[in-house]
Amino acid sequence: MFLHRQELQFKSTPDQPDAVYARKLQEVLGGQYGEITVAMQYMFQGWNMHIPGKYRDLVFGIGSEEFGHVEMLATMIAQLLEKAPLGITGDAVQADSTVAAVIGGTDLQHAIVAGAGARPVDSMANPWQGSYITASGNLLADFTANANAEMQGRAQVARLYHMTDDHGVRELLSFLLARDTMHQNQWIAAAAELREEGAEDLPVPSNFPLGNEQREVAYQYLNFSDGQHAGEGRWAAGATPDGHGEFSYHEGPTTTAPMPPPTHPDSRFYGTTELPNKMEKMAGTAQDKLKKE
Amino acid sequence: MFLHRQELQFKSTPDQPDAVYARKLQEVLGGQYGEITVAMQYMFQGWNMHIPGKYRDLVFGIGSEEFGHVEMLATMIAQLLEKAPLGITGDAVQADSTVAAVIGGTDLQHAIVAGAGARPVDSMANPWQGSYITASGNLLADFTANANAEMQGRAQVARLYHMTDDHGVRELLSFLLARDTMHQNQWIAAAAELREEGAEDLPVPSNFPLGNEQREVAYQYLNFSDGQHAGEGRWAAGATPDGHGEFSYHEGPTTTAPMPPPTHPDSRFYGTTELPNKMEKMAGTAQDKLKKE
Amino acid sequence: MFLHRQELQFKSTPDQPDAVYARKLQEVLGGQYGEITVAMQYMFQGWNMHIPGKYRDLVFGIGSEEFGHVEMLATMIAQLLEKAPLGITGDAVQADSTVAAVIGGTDLQHAIVAGAGARPVDSMANPWQGSYITASGNLLADFTANANAEMQGRAQVARLYHMTDDHGVRELLSFLLARDTMHQNQWIAAAAELREEGAEDLPVPSNFPLGNEQREVAYQYLNFSDGQHAGEGRWAAGATPDGHGEFSYHEGPTTTAPMPPPTHPDSRFYGTTELPNKMEKMAGTAQDKLKKE
Amino acid sequence: MFLHRQELQFKSTPDQPDAVYARKLQEVLGGQYGEITVAMQYMFQGWNMHIPGKYRDLVFGIGSEEFGHVEMLATMIAQLLEKAPLGITGDAVQADSTVAAVIGGTDLQHAIVAGAGARPVDSMANPWQGSYITASGNLLADFTANANAEMQGRAQVARLYHMTDDHGVRELLSFLLARDTMHQNQWIAAAAELREEGAEDLPVPSNFPLGNEQREVAYQYLNFSDGQHAGEGRWAAGATPDGHGEFSYHEGPTTTAPMPPPTHPDSRFYGTTELPNKMEKMAGTAQDKLKKE
Amino acid sequence: MFLHRQELQFKSTPDQPDAVYARKLQEVLGGQYGEITVAMQYMFQGWNMHIPGKYRDLVFGIGSEEFGHVEMLATMIAQLLEKAPLGITGDAVQADSTVAAVIGGTDLQHAIVAGAGARPVDSMANPWQGSYITASGNLLADFTANANAEMQGRAQVARLYHMTDDHGVRELLSFLLARDTMHQNQWIAAAAELREEGAEDLPVPSNFPLGNEQREVAYQYLNFSDGQHAGEGRWAAGATPDGHGEFSYHEGPTTTAPMPPPTHPDSRFYGTTELPNKMEKMAGTAQDKLKKE
Amino acid sequence: MFLHRQELQFKSTPDQPDAVYARKLQEVLGGQYGEITVAMQYMFQGWNMHIPGKYRDLVFGIGSEEFGHVEMLATMIAQLLEKAPLGITGDAVQADSTVAAVIGGTDLQHAIVAGAGARPVDSMANPWQGSYITASGNLLADFTANANAEMQGRAQVARLYHMTDDHGVRELLSFLLARDTMHQNQWIAAAAELREEGAEDLPVPSNFPLGNEQREVAYQYLNFSDGQHAGEGRWAAGATPDGHGEFSYHEGPTTTAPMPPPTHPDSRFYGTTELPNKMEKMAGTAQDKLKKE
Repeated sequence: MFLHRQELQFKSTPDQPDAVYARKLQEVLGGQYGEITVAMQYMFQGWNMHIPGKYRDLVFGIGSEEFGHVEMLATMIAQLLEKAPLGITGDAVQADSTVAAVIGGTDLQHAIVAGAGARPVDSMANPWQGSYITASGNLLADFTANANAEMQGRAQVARLYHMTDDHGVRELLSFLLARDTMHQNQWIAAAAELREEGAEDLPVPSNFPLGNEQREVAYQYLNFSDGQHAGEGRWAAGATPDGHGEFSYHEGPTTTAPMPPPTHPDSRFYGTTELPNKMEKMAGTAQDKLKKE
Repeated sequence: MFLHRQELQFKSTPDQPDAVYARKLQEVLGGQYGEITVAMQYMFQGWNMHIPGKYRDLVFGIGSEEFGHVEMLATMIAQLLEKAPLGITGDAVQADSTVAAVIGGTDLQHAIVAGAGARPVDSMANPWQGSYITASGNLLADFTANANAEMQGRAQVARLYHMTDDHGVRELLSFLLARDTMHQNQWIAAAAELREEGAEDLPVPSNFPLGNEQREVAYQYLNFSDGQHAGEGRWAAGATPDGHGEFSYHEGPTTTAPMPPPTHPDSRFYGTTELPNKMEKMAGTAQDKLKKE
Repeated sequence: MFLHRQELQFKSTPDQPDAVYARKLQEVLGGQYGEITVAMQYMFQGWNMHIPGKYRDLVFGIGSEEFGHVEMLATMIAQLLEKAPLGITGDAVQADSTVAAVIGGTDLQHAIVAGAGARPVDSMANPWQGSYITASGNLLADFTANANAEMQGRAQVARLYHMTDDHGVRELLSFLLARDTMHQNQWIAAAAELREEGAEDLPVPSNFPLGNEQREVAYQYLNFSDGQHAGEGRWAAGATPDGHGEFSYHEGPTTTAPMPPPTHPDSRFYGTTELPNKMEKMAGTAQDKLKKE
Repeated sequence: MFLHRQELQFKSTPDQPDAVYARKLQEVLGGQYGEITVAMQYMFQGWNMHIPGKYRDLVFGIGSEEFGHVEMLATMIAQLLEKAPLGITGDAVQADSTVAAVIGGTDLQHAIVAGAGARPVDSMANPWQGSYITASGNLLADFTANANAEMQGRAQVARLYHMTDDHGVRELLSFLLARDTMHQNQWIAAAAELREEGAEDLPVPSNFPLGNEQREVAYQYLNFSDGQHAGEGRWAAGATPDGHGEFSYHEGPTTTAPMPPPTHPDSRFYGTTELPNKMEKMAGTAQDKLKKE
Repeated sequence: MFLHRQELQFKSTPDQPDAVYARKLQEVLGGQYGEITVAMQYMFQGWNMHIPGKYRDLVFGIGSEEFGHVEMLATMIAQLLEKAPLGITGDAVQADSTVAAVIGGTDLQHAIVAGAGARPVDSMANPWQGSYITASGNLLADFTANANAEMQGRAQVARLYHMTDDHGVRELLSFLLARDTMHQNQWIAAAAELREEGAEDLPVPSNFPLGNEQREVAYQYLNFSDGQHAGEGRWAAGATPDGHGEFSYHEGPTTTAPMPPPTHPDSRFYGTTELPNKMEKMAGTAQDKLKKE
Repeated sequence: MFLHRQELQFKSTPDQPDAVYARKLQEVLGGQYGEITVAMQYMFQGWNMHIPGKYRDLVFGIGSEEFGHVEMLATMIAQLLEKAPLGITGDAVQADSTVAAVIGGTDLQHAIVAGAGARPVDSMANPWQGSYITASGNLLADFTANANAEMQGRAQVARLYHMTDDHGVRELLSFLLARDTMHQNQWIAAAAELREEGAEDLPVPSNFPLGNEQREVAYQYLNFSDGQHAGEGRWAAGATPDGHGEFSYHEGPTTTAPMPPPTHPDSRFYGTTELPNKMEKMAGTAQDKLKKE
């Protein structure tokens, strides 16, 4: 159950309108790694979680905060659009070439569809979609997904920070950067705790019977490119992070198998199959073609 | 540049047809975490990478192997479909209720669109899409994304392993499981190496000036849900994994701000703004409405 | 800002597992008119709203409840999946033909991707997307969109009600039906209030200068099909609901214009344009083709 | 059956080229509420309709007109693009900074993909999709959807009207605005007629047995946000529009239920479940992991 | 302009209900190569065409027929769904295991969303989308696209023909097969006519100055796979179909170039670039991190 | 199996940065007819092919080359972005109005998401998707699809050629144009060979029993538009390309059938069906509504 409070976690007001920047901000609102993604991802992880207690409390605790971040960004975007010249021809300001330039960079749907409002889309106006999120039920995998989401998100906010001089916007981004710092740290800590407590381990899923996998290729680095330095990293020699093996390095595959012969499905799929004797086929055609099946 | 060799990395032949299972296998071919995703993800990381040498060789080396895994799965799927009763009414086998049941579970486009062939879609027939991949240029973030992708992928293959008794299929899955084990280990090792070499560090991106973020909330766990156990994990107390702070725990926000007043864009967006004095508006309507702007 | 409370608005526990029904329920969780849609739609309307006070409070008040409905449905779905035979081959139950039949009807990603958990998708596994929502800034239009969303949603829940005999599921649906009844009524009441207060009126947007539209066709029913009864409804005669005109009925268009001549863009788009004199062109080809531009 | 006539319902010729405006017009051609949407929506409602006569004639009658509007807009867009400088480097005009500015705002696929032609996409180039339309079989719900579609569409056309000074374009928009006025009025009239004739009523669907819903919460406004004015509208007191109840106002939920315990699916989904006794698990690992299942 | 006539081009009534087959038919209504695709594709080609006369008349003439085919299929689908047991639990028929089996194969949205009606989606419920169509302005390319669309479409209808014994359905498919035969022939004839008249030729676009392409690789078959038979076809030797060259066969590339060095974008994108001297970096960190930019 | 070589098939280095052009190039990398499409399309055709030998070797041979073209374009795009002013506010260059103009035309996700790197999207940032490809198993249909793909692709590259003066870019495009010339020729040659060898013929699929289609309409041009010149082409008279008939020309349909009556599904779908006697219904309402089902 969610209760909404009509206040924000942090001040979210720009110094001045900037419709192009409003569009850029959409990325961290409705993009692959925007706030809608993390909010939804953490909540679905909570709803699908199989253990009560601290881990579930954690995903709910952060997920709910993220919905508030969606709100802060939507509010900011609406304000950036408020007095921006969004392509209204009658305006004197339109005669200005700088304005003309700016118009090219706006999200046209901000004006035409939302009437100067925020939208659940990314900076190129792709709608947010459910396939952005990850909630597998395996917590070590999912917390790794969460750490990645916060890393990607923080990198995007950091880039956006340099794309504006507006103090109000920068203040909000400073706040979001700090929260991303925190959440990155938390997911990394949570993943570590899962392993320490013995709940999960590497490789994920760690309780799949290892005897059921082809152990002989489980720690071989098979280099399918011709890079000369691929074998120099710690991924090519020494103990593996999962503690079960030793890395070894190989140029290309250590196993091969012939491709199986082509398939021959039912002829009623009308795929191209045997190459007929040409004359035979042509003779057959005249008769066969006009018969009813 | 890619050179193709008409052999497989591992044997990929089922014992018998199974159209429903063919559909299930599509998930690890063309799903969010299927082989197309990892193949494309690693190659785009390579093409966008800013440093030559071992890290770039690594993503190229694994990415190219993954394209071969796409091929192994596509080959397997085509064979599983080869002699399966894909809804052909004329077949005697259709009278069988088990067959009828099976038909419900097939990917109908395997039959109607591909004529008993594999497709670049997931198990529910959503087409693979470019928005599944991650390639940000920040290697610590991206290698974390890669570790996650291999974890999710291995979990899916492990689940699929139990959904069939076909020895040929299980053999292929055993091989893929082992390779996922390897690749998980490699990305984790590579992320560690980046930190050891000082190329990247936590929080990502580590060279963003920390002074530009709101440091006071950078290590606070603000719990926006009412879970009683949220403060019990290592994410709520002690040193943070990035080495720059100490976790602290708080119920709800430590900062708040009033929501800014609603925006009032240009009236020509025809949004609902001021509530007019009703009588006034009605009087005005009769006259105004019929005038030309 | 959102605060999450770990309780539900209503009991959400099924009597028994039913993976096929779990899939059906996804429609009202993550479909075009599912709970994610209305939750997001109302919140975006609030964030984009141009007037403070009762209307904004209304969209926030209902929108926040809807996020809780997402949670109730996700929780229910996870439980319906909990002990269902989701295609695990080893299970004895698999030998049962009824079970085989059932498997065909499940969302395969419930098993393979989510490990028996809910997903942000509809009943056919299309991911939820941002393009489902409507928030234009014009409240009369948007509240009409909201009334429609609640109507479509209630119709879907009503259909789902008859597709199960599970008492726990039916109880939850009874609750959701009642809330949809309420919300339908509220949006209709709110739309009426907007008109009574003179904030908005028909046609939407009512403050666009009517003199700027082609008034002569503004109240003509132009019937482009040959249905004999199209003129019998109240849409073909009498006063129009917006109070500004009288309906009239016409077979087909009352105006026509010739199609403009085809366009001839720059030849460097290589569209097919003038048909050349054939001989001329062929002569020209030999020489022109090998010259550098 | 559709018969095409090579003339337009109204003149559709611009005064001059304008590639940026051509892109803006795509919104009302191929956007969520563009002409393709209403054309398809009304026709599908007709094909799915369960009663012959005036209502079906109505949806066919308007739907067919809307296909003609698609044509008028496509024709206009092609002309707006005809002589526009769509990024052709060789042109002298390219040296002009105004032109450079303009290029940024064009739909690049107009040039690269369509060779200066219209496309079935919106103003941000998202392809039109079938999920935009609504056709449920319940006519009161669907006519409400139609009224909404015409309202949203007219608001968008009204916004676009102010974004150009081109007389030819404005004339076409004037015509479309008038037709949207008509169609809004028609769907509202049709919805009213359905209720008057007793075919449908509120709440939709009105023939679902009300006794099957939780009547006690069917007319309660449960305010999940903390807005102080939410109770002031007619949605919080007085008779409900469906004529079956009285609105009442409540802060937050009037019912609650504990969240059900977490689910424990089959262990072969490899979700994280019980937290093991750490020592025990570690001991077990060494042995179990290497056994065959 | 389109005029709709309430009759069909051909009888479209099934012998009996079949919800699973209704779903299969969706492929040729709303799939990649379904009737919506060809209808839209031909009309957009007409609206974007640069020459009046027979070619434009042709695309309009066939395109309009295809909209009627959409109608015939939608009508058929609605009838196939009419009395089918679409998952209504209360029905006695539900106890039947065959029915249970069938349910798994239905499009659940036929029931839940459309109330037993047709939808603009394919057989796996992916919504139809604008990106399926092709209209480039180059008629030789586009007529080739059209021939392909009719071929794929006819292959799909042929497959569907064998998946039912219903005479009513088969009659409709017989009709559609014949029309696809006609349209395939027409597009091939039209493409030939374009070449004969000198309007277009191979390679498309034929008026691009050939001197601007790297002529030395324009007729080389570079075999990047290791297939032993690739050189045996007429694509590897002899005159090329465009009449400008001779095919030659080569194993792998005839040209190569080193990969350019990695890029080094602005450091404020926070990509991973130079590997720092580790000690230096660590020393720097302590100081730099706390400074304001 | 794919082996990657760290060199390119051709030089791919621009003379100077150009972020707007980088975006344009995305079309032929990740668009409907970009290099990812043809690479994937040919490989899937190979994996689904039913005959070994020269045809399969051909699709593998070209498909593998196309993956290398993806690489060449991605590499070029990354370089075009390398030193471009992608919206970094702090840069002095930003004060320049030309730069401002340019920014509007960039793919914002190149900067925000990829940190100045290439992405698997088209020029309007729509992600590449699996539904772009065609692999039906019928080789005549598929090779026609391939010819079309190469034609559309070459037309797009030709257009792009004129949109830049950069010699490095033009050189790469010259190379790609030549390869598209070759591949067009190859698919046309391969389609011809299939017919000559009797493997496939027109109409596709040629082995469907013609007696099962409505032969009387199989060669009639039914003109559903009113174009005066539609009958003048070779598609309206003379022998048909498939060699089985004679074209004939007809205005409109030669067959018609009445629309079947509307459907009446189960009342529990709550569609609008019979219009009740109004008074009766109202009387019934009061009692019925409060009863339990």
